[in-house]
Amino acid sequence: MSTSSTPPAPPPSNRISGTAISKEIRAELAVECSSIKSTVTPGLAVILVGSRPDSLAYVRMKKKACAEVGIDSFGYDYPETVTQQELIDKVNELNADPKVHGILVQLPLPNHIVENLVTSAVHPDKDVDGLHPLNCAKLVTAQTHGGSVKMNWKDLKSIPFHIACTPQGCIELLDRSGVEIEGKRAVVIGRSNLVGMPVSLLLNHRNATITIVHSRTIDAQSVVRTADIVIAAVGRAKMVKSDWLKEGAVVIDVGINSVDAPDTKKGYRLVGDVDFDECEGKCEKITPVPGGVGPMTIAMLLRNTVNSAKRVCGI
Amino acid sequence: MSTSSTPPAPPPSNRISGTAISKEIRAELAVECSSIKSTVTPGLAVILVGSRPDSLAYVRMKKKACAEVGIDSFGYDYPETVTQQELIDKVNELNADPKVHGILVQLPLPNHIVENLVTSAVHPDKDVDGLHPLNCAKLVTAQTHGGSVKMNWKDLKSIPFHIACTPQGCIELLDRSGVEIEGKRAVVIGRSNLVGMPVSLLLNHRNATITIVHSRTIDAQSVVRTADIVIAAVGRAKMVKSDWLKEGAVVIDVGINSVDAPDTKKGYRLVGDVDFDECEGKCEKITPVPGGVGPMTIAMLLRNTVNSAKRVCGI
Ligand SMILES: NC(=O)C1=CN([C@@H]2O[C@H](COP(=O)(O)OP(=O)(O)OC[C@H]3O[C@@H](n4cnc5c(N)ncnc54)[C@H](OP(=O)(O)O)[C@@H]3O)[C@@H](O)[C@H]2O)C=CC1
Ligand SMILES: NC(=O)C1=CN([C@@H]2O[C@H](COP(=O)(O)OP(=O)(O)OC[C@H]3O[C@@H](n4cnc5c(N)ncnc54)[C@H](OP(=O)(O)O)[C@@H]3O)[C@@H](O)[C@H]2O)C=CC1
Repeated sequence: MSTSSTPPAPPPSNRISGTAISKEIRAELAVECSSIKSTVTPGLAVILVGSRPDSLAYVRMKKKACAEVGIDSFGYDYPETVTQQELIDKVNELNADPKVHGILVQLPLPNHIVENLVTSAVHPDKDVDGLHPLNCAKLVTAQTHGGSVKMNWKDLKSIPFHIACTPQGCIELLDRSGVEIEGKRAVVIGRSNLVGMPVSLLLNHRNATITIVHSRTIDAQSVVRTADIVIAAVGRAKMVKSDWLKEGAVVIDVGINSVDAPDTKKGYRLVGDVDFDECEGKCEKITPVPGGVGPMTIAMLLRNTVNSAKRVCGI
Repeated sequence: MSTSSTPPAPPPSNRISGTAISKEIRAELAVECSSIKSTVTPGLAVILVGSRPDSLAYVRMKKKACAEVGIDSFGYDYPETVTQQELIDKVNELNADPKVHGILVQLPLPNHIVENLVTSAVHPDKDVDGLHPLNCAKLVTAQTHGGSVKMNWKDLKSIPFHIACTPQGCIELLDRSGVEIEGKRAVVIGRSNLVGMPVSLLLNHRNATITIVHSRTIDAQSVVRTADIVIAAVGRAKMVKSDWLKEGAVVIDVGINSVDAPDTKKGYRLVGDVDFDECEGKCEKITPVPGGVGPMTIAMLLRNTVNSAKRVCGI
């Protein structure tokens, strides 16, 4: 029986805090912006269409985060009735504007607009969302093509093209939590263009052996159980249970799902694709929802914008 | 004891014959070319640099195959000393030439030329090799992007952009051998831009659950053993042994490796990445080398060229 008067140290938490890590990154970016400010102030243009409350909230958060680190943000708000051509014209104008280093088109756009015609109009160098086909192609082909420059995938800041923010955030969470990726078995649940596919490609570049699970996978559970690293990007509340996991797995939960919570003021609560309470004890490390991947997405958007400005200025 | 005078039927072979299947496809293409000939004759331009014996042989085979199915082929041969700009100028000229529906730059190019600057100069619509970044991007992003047309991945002929020939040939071999891909576990060994990565993406589009094995994979053998379908695209003679395979796996062997064979006239023999003799008995189906994937690559090149001509003419 211990008689020591100091309380025992709390058990080391296995939670990966996206809140803390994104704060750290934003602080680094603020230092960076300040150190380059005699040469350039990074600028982000944000195009918003309509008044979806979630889109409004995201845009507000992004502009606020820009201001905090020292990025100029320029907002362009349009009514629901805007035409596709008006948006493309604005994108082209921003492509030519030297004060703008990143252009963000807040999705979704109204149904009468073909989304990828607008996002593809963004110049690849200003495509800080990393969704332009030429940026997607670079993520697949950068490594082995004849004449290509060898990339340093261990330092995503050094990659000379834009990588989608959420996937990039997942890798950054692993790196800053000391999780080794090389040689590991990684299972990604979900294969969307926005998350599942690009995060799989990034893990592959980092020499994990990747498996991609989707809605047509038979016995997803037994596939996931082979993983040292699990990335869940599905959109199904608490789908991944503790018996889906290998003991000691590292889990990055990208999912954001709203579930009824009559006991709360809002009447709903956000949960991930992973049953956190059930899984936490079995994991080596795990991200919570909220406070995991979410804040990283914005941090990576800021980083892409700063990198874009630096590349234009050759610094 | 059987007294029948007719000999027993040979056991059904589990070999997938690329020779036979590619012949079938070439015959179909010949019928197609003949049926469209009042409107268009598909044309393939072939750019060859230097005099590597393997490149000369490939180009000869490709031109011969074109002639057999009714595709015009146009050869442009350059000495080793050709400049990058001369090649790009020729590509641009061919991009504008309405008789040319496909442009093939035989690789490798000499070291003073940046390969992907030349291949990227080919207009995506004429990129019958499927190596242009915009065609690579479509292979990754075609399925879920906003506003994108839903592709019918079960009919590769219907896909409105060019897909790399060898990966496409692998899928065609599976389809024409009655192998179900949907819901299966597929392991691809190799992750090159030319074969491993695109074939993985195609299998994913067909709803297999894919795992990509590479040189940094730890215990590749036990990963491969989980596969219903194995695609080997490594370049290591007989690397895959029978104890790497699940009983009843289907194996597509892309590898072409030359091994010493002092007993033969040439002094060497071609073998695949799979130890065929050891593995044949354990597989549901398997491709031999040679006579497996090899002939399919040319058949898919012809098909891409015919499709390209048909798309230009809206047929
Ligand atoms: N934290 C953040 O900043 C962000 C969070 N998100 C969240 O991440 C989640 C995924 O987003 P996103 O990728 O855009 O979603 P999509 O709907 O585009 O993709 C979902 C993927 O999950 C797969 N899937 C669906 N059901 C199952 C199942 N039962 N088993 C296995 N796989 C399944 C789908 O397969 P199939 O292809 O076969 O249909 C699809 O590939 C969402 O909850 C979203 O809110 C997204 C972006 C940013
Ligand atoms: N039949 C046909 O028409 C064609 C045949 N081929 C043949 O296919 C083979 C592959 O070609 P290609 O993709 O261009 O070759 P590359 O050399 O570009 O790629 C080989 C791949 O194999 C991986 N690899 C190497 N060693 C191992 C290992 N020990 N275990 C697991 N993976 C390993 C490499 O991994 P890493 O990325 O880590 O280096 C790399 O991804 C060759 O034999 C080639 O001749 C190619 C094209 C057409």
